[in-house]
Amino acid sequence: MKRVKVSNNVIRRLPRYLRRLDELTEEGVSRISSFELASQLGLTASQIRQDFSCFGEFGQQGYGYNVPALRAHLASVLGVDRGFTAVLIGVGNIGRALMDNFCFSDWGFRLTAAFDIDPRLIGTEFKGVPILGMENLEDYLAENKTDIAVLTVPKEAAVTVTERLTGHGIDAIWNFTNVELTGPTSDVIVENVHFSDSLLSLSYYVAERRDEATAKAEREK
Amino acid sequence: MKRVKVSNNVIRRLPRYLRRLDELTEEGVSRISSFELASQLGLTASQIRQDFSCFGEFGQQGYGYNVPALRAHLASVLGVDRGFTAVLIGVGNIGRALMDNFCFSDWGFRLTAAFDIDPRLIGTEFKGVPILGMENLEDYLAENKTDIAVLTVPKEAAVTVTERLTGHGIDAIWNFTNVELTGPTSDVIVENVHFSDSLLSLSYYVAERRDEATAKAEREK
Repeated sequence: MKRVKVSNNVIRRLPRYLRRLDELTEEGVSRISSFELASQLGLTASQIRQDFSCFGEFGQQGYGYNVPALRAHLASVLGVDRGFTAVLIGVGNIGRALMDNFCFSDWGFRLTAAFDIDPRLIGTEFKGVPILGMENLEDYLAENKTDIAVLTVPKEAAVTVTERLTGHGIDAIWNFTNVELTGPTSDVIVENVHFSDSLLSLSYYVAERRDEATAKAEREK
Repeated sequence: MKRVKVSNNVIRRLPRYLRRLDELTEEGVSRISSFELASQLGLTASQIRQDFSCFGEFGQQGYGYNVPALRAHLASVLGVDRGFTAVLIGVGNIGRALMDNFCFSDWGFRLTAAFDIDPRLIGTEFKGVPILGMENLEDYLAENKTDIAVLTVPKEAAVTVTERLTGHGIDAIWNFTNVELTGPTSDVIVENVHFSDSLLSLSYYVAERRDEATAKAEREK
């Protein structure tokens, strides 16, 4: 795919578009105007048109977007059709939660193995994914081309494990450890999951609502 | 706090600013220019100045921002100093992962109780938080003013539990179930955590890197 440089903000909006298009498909909607799509997402129509224009020509004046076609194209831009493979490192609570509830294959990823140090887990399977010992990590990666690693180890192990991952063909780390991995991973793409960002946005909206209620009560005194 | 209406995009950036300011504090940095802060965050200085201007006057020409003062003010805008209380519903993998690893108090939240239907969990404590039976939910909320609920129940239970939560003074739901809760929750703020958004952004960057490598190889043929 030929690519132009696209800003991070645009890239961050693409998954939201994809989710909304999936919901529209489920609702049986097969075409939508940029105005309607924008209003459903709390954006402006011109922003949506501008975002999509980074990836080609979409939509028609007076017709709008063809939902399945737009969905397919955005999915392809996002790499959903690349058959990326993943391993998960650390079968603790968060690792198990992902293996149990997160449907990697919905997003084009194949989770091929998980790794842990707990002898009670090693050699077992969880949701059809084999759990191997950490001592086998390098051998496994050498023999099985793996695109990304899902890092769900305890904080203390994050840097050491990252060092072991680099240099084995891993392109990216999906990092749930809350540890910044910028140091040892210059060549590896790191995507950090920060639960706190989400909680703090929620906190903002609650605080705002309270302040508005207080202001209203003041005015009505 | 007097508030002006601020766009969602600005609100979504505030937690990132807070995290960066925390890191700067840890690094011993006590003042920073908007230019430098912007470059560390991949934004423009004018965007940062514009974002902050929604919340008052910060920074001084030629001096920059005072890191601890800016940090304190943004934290307050985000409601970190409100003493919000939370309950967690569903002590499965993701619920346990949050109770185990996510430091609610770092972000001003007090997790006062968790709820589950598993008789083996009910009456126990996990990380100092009591686990109560779901049948006690309404009574608990009536007796203990609770600001938010962390929803970590299985998909199938999401809507029913949400209906039980509404009308009991809960302001917001932090929703990990991947189920859209817009229907029954008109009055409740819902913050959805979508792991897929994060994975798909990562997927984009990996696909982009591959395409660039392919294009480079083509050119060098």
